[in-house]
Amino acid sequence: MAANFSPKAVLIDLAGVLHTGDEALPGAVLALARLRASGLALRFLTNTTRTPSNILFAKLQRMGFTLAAGEIQTAALAARTLVRRRRLKPLWLVHPDIAAEMGDSAVDPDVVVLGDMGEHFTYPLLNRAFRLLMDGLPLMAMARNRYFMEADGLSLDMGAFVAGLEYSAGVSAEVTGKPAAPFFEAALAELGVAAADAVLIGDDLADDIGGAQAAGIPGILVRTGKFRPGDDAHPEIRPAAVVDNFTAAVNAIIR
Amino acid sequence: MAANFSPKAVLIDLAGVLHTGDEALPGAVLALARLRASGLALRFLTNTTRTPSNILFAKLQRMGFTLAAGEIQTAALAARTLVRRRRLKPLWLVHPDIAAEMGDSAVDPDVVVLGDMGEHFTYPLLNRAFRLLMDGLPLMAMARNRYFMEADGLSLDMGAFVAGLEYSAGVSAEVTGKPAAPFFEAALAELGVAAADAVLIGDDLADDIGGAQAAGIPGILVRTGKFRPGDDAHPEIRPAAVVDNFTAAVNAIIR
Repeated sequence: MAANFSPKAVLIDLAGVLHTGDEALPGAVLALARLRASGLALRFLTNTTRTPSNILFAKLQRMGFTLAAGEIQTAALAARTLVRRRRLKPLWLVHPDIAAEMGDSAVDPDVVVLGDMGEHFTYPLLNRAFRLLMDGLPLMAMARNRYFMEADGLSLDMGAFVAGLEYSAGVSAEVTGKPAAPFFEAALAELGVAAADAVLIGDDLADDIGGAQAAGIPGILVRTGKFRPGDDAHPEIRPAAVVDNFTAAVNAIIR
Repeated sequence: MAANFSPKAVLIDLAGVLHTGDEALPGAVLALARLRASGLALRFLTNTTRTPSNILFAKLQRMGFTLAAGEIQTAALAARTLVRRRRLKPLWLVHPDIAAEMGDSAVDPDVVVLGDMGEHFTYPLLNRAFRLLMDGLPLMAMARNRYFMEADGLSLDMGAFVAGLEYSAGVSAEVTGKPAAPFFEAALAELGVAAADAVLIGDDLADDIGGAQAAGIPGILVRTGKFRPGDDAHPEIRPAAVVDNFTAAVNAIIR
């Protein structure tokens, strides 16, 4: 399946599309340079919440990608913006690496904000969150991705812990990153582009393509990263195109 | 709400009904003695999988309860029975305290069996389970309880981790303990009693009362342990009676 696109802006997922871990995917650096040379507006949308945005930016630069810090939109910063805008007192349950970027937790919190703690997820921390949810606090989750691609294979993403807390506490989390529509809408608003004039490139059927689709944005699914056979035959989530990798996606856009 | 019962056998949940942690609930020792003196057949059904059955038995005796080791039916032993009967090669992800009772894990497992690891749940172990599930192994879970009552309040039960793995791996667990019908049916078969001639006493609306209901066994919900206001007004799970505690449940049975 292939298609042609004539967008004004391109939204690009990072892990699994441009890189895996600390390595650029083959051809991705060159393809991004070609896409940028075409003059299209770009935004990089990531649900990765184990790394602060400045480190993420430096890491991408080190791999050879040309981008500006302001072009990266993270689920963690989206959570911080929401918490500040609503004047909430958060308990941040986040990876130690992004704790400083999020700021201090409140002594007497009125919202539990969950990020991807990776190996730092522990029973006592999850039980602390559970008890606050049972006391009636709302749950904000930076993402609810099921899994992601690591150098040695697919790994459990934070969605498992969101689903677990939702199940035990009988609540529904508000997601600040993909696939939440406001996350995509914030990118479109900053770029001044309508949904139909943008296109998204991602490797996550549910959270990239499904989220974009719900926001009215055509999605190009790449067969790298966490892509698994069958992802291109979902009954409800329909990518506008399915291509082998980021280079092929760029080819479908700039021809 | 109260009712009268004339059962031939009584199935009794342990934690939250007879005791909390290491302490017998008020009146429970005496009420069990009265129930036993009535001559009714008894079975104790527990989803607790942090404690081996012999230690659990000794603990209950130490609190003053009169019971026989063979009267206790645990979700962990039900899992072991299933694994052996089907000649499966298990990876046991269980609390260290019950590891010896379950036996060795296989080097090349064909089923993942999850128990309540409590504070021993870690990201690396959950990720190991996740990867095996993504490779197509089935998931067996000893229980999927949402929470349980500890001395200092409600705590997250293993259901959160079952729900999380199910979500991320896109699978459904087979539960060996409550509320699985075979768990209740095994107790009835051993006692030689029909479902309608038994009654269950429990504090968990979904897993005790709902499970019993699905197996055709009337359930008495007690307002101790994990009971929370509203549990007695569920749209689908209808206890045959809701009473203050185990003593009141025994009174409704033996009058």
